[in-house]
Amino acid sequence: MSEPRLVEVRKNVLKQNDVIARGLREQFRAAGVFVVSLVSSPGSGKTTFLEKTLTLLQPRYRVAALVGDLATENDAKRLARSNAPVKQITTGTLCHLEAAMVQRALEDWNLQELDFLFIENVGNLVCPSSYDLGENLRFVLLSVTEGEDKPLKYPTIFNSADVAIVTKIELAAAVEFDWEAARKNIQSVRPGMKVFRLSAKTGQGMEEYFSFLAEQLAELRAQVQV
Amino acid sequence: MSEPRLVEVRKNVLKQNDVIARGLREQFRAAGVFVVSLVSSPGSGKTTFLEKTLTLLQPRYRVAALVGDLATENDAKRLARSNAPVKQITTGTLCHLEAAMVQRALEDWNLQELDFLFIENVGNLVCPSSYDLGENLRFVLLSVTEGEDKPLKYPTIFNSADVAIVTKIELAAAVEFDWEAARKNIQSVRPGMKVFRLSAKTGQGMEEYFSFLAEQLAELRAQVQV
Repeated sequence: MSEPRLVEVRKNVLKQNDVIARGLREQFRAAGVFVVSLVSSPGSGKTTFLEKTLTLLQPRYRVAALVGDLATENDAKRLARSNAPVKQITTGTLCHLEAAMVQRALEDWNLQELDFLFIENVGNLVCPSSYDLGENLRFVLLSVTEGEDKPLKYPTIFNSADVAIVTKIELAAAVEFDWEAARKNIQSVRPGMKVFRLSAKTGQGMEEYFSFLAEQLAELRAQVQV
Repeated sequence: MSEPRLVEVRKNVLKQNDVIARGLREQFRAAGVFVVSLVSSPGSGKTTFLEKTLTLLQPRYRVAALVGDLATENDAKRLARSNAPVKQITTGTLCHLEAAMVQRALEDWNLQELDFLFIENVGNLVCPSSYDLGENLRFVLLSVTEGEDKPLKYPTIFNSADVAIVTKIELAAAVEFDWEAARKNIQSVRPGMKVFRLSAKTGQGMEEYFSFLAEQLAELRAQVQV
């Protein structure tokens, strides 16, 4: 295996990504927009969660989303039902978003017209972890149907994220989800990590998470004095 | 982005992988062992499915498994309860198994003592698709909780697989799983793909899948005349 050479080239790609991500972060800050990225395994409910988020935040804030996917534009179509501006980024065979893709997708958007920008990554618990997208916070979603062991099995992505969102809690009883074990596993990988438990389907737990977002935006605005 | 150079190096890695995979395939064939690899998103139930498979096949066949994971040896521990020989391959930050890892893991095993070898890949619907492991068949698992759209969103992995296994069907009603839509999506990405629907938890649908495995082994043995 020519692993060492691959690793070296990969390092250069990552470095370039970091430079672009830094530029994005400054741009977001200057515009006073709070940026959240979402990572998770495929099928954890990122798009449903994001659709609910956009729909419910829309009356109170100016929100928009970028959604990454390998092949289809289905997510953008689903999210467009929220009436928020949404743009799809198709990555082909690439298993993650990169800062340059986000930069290109935002070229014709005026960030100053936004309060929150959400970036939904490709469904993957491995690849997105090393790519900074300039976001303020990275949310890792974990659905109750996936099992409590995922933080231990994919520690890098849980480590790279700031907030864990346990989704589909309306199914917790049906799958005998052990919240205490999940909590312990998350904390062992990322001590002190903030965790929300919610159901995008029933709406349970969404308000607490919205309050958290509102606080984050207020803090950002206080800092940058937009 | 230095994408072109990365792509070029990646091609060399893939080519080397194919050479090793070809060697493995010949080795498996010579030993008369039928090899199945499992790919899926994290949390689709690969390990539960594999544990049930090993436990139920064990009285009838000589079975063993290799399990890939980034960080933990939990899967091997779970699978060891089946009493079948099981070896864990930890990949670090790599999002897929490679043929060389399988080769190393098998070094001290006598393949002629086996009827079936199962290889559980890292939970990922993107990366494992390009890496041949020398397997006879690749199964892609899709749990009903992930949604019917996954074949459309991850077409490459569905294309690279031979059989689709729809898992956790005991939860189909709770998540309002639309089997007809899932079937249509699978067939549109991979026309004619064989699909099993089963529950490793209740055992429903497992016997039909075991019959299929038995046929595959019989065919292989007829060809190689072990």
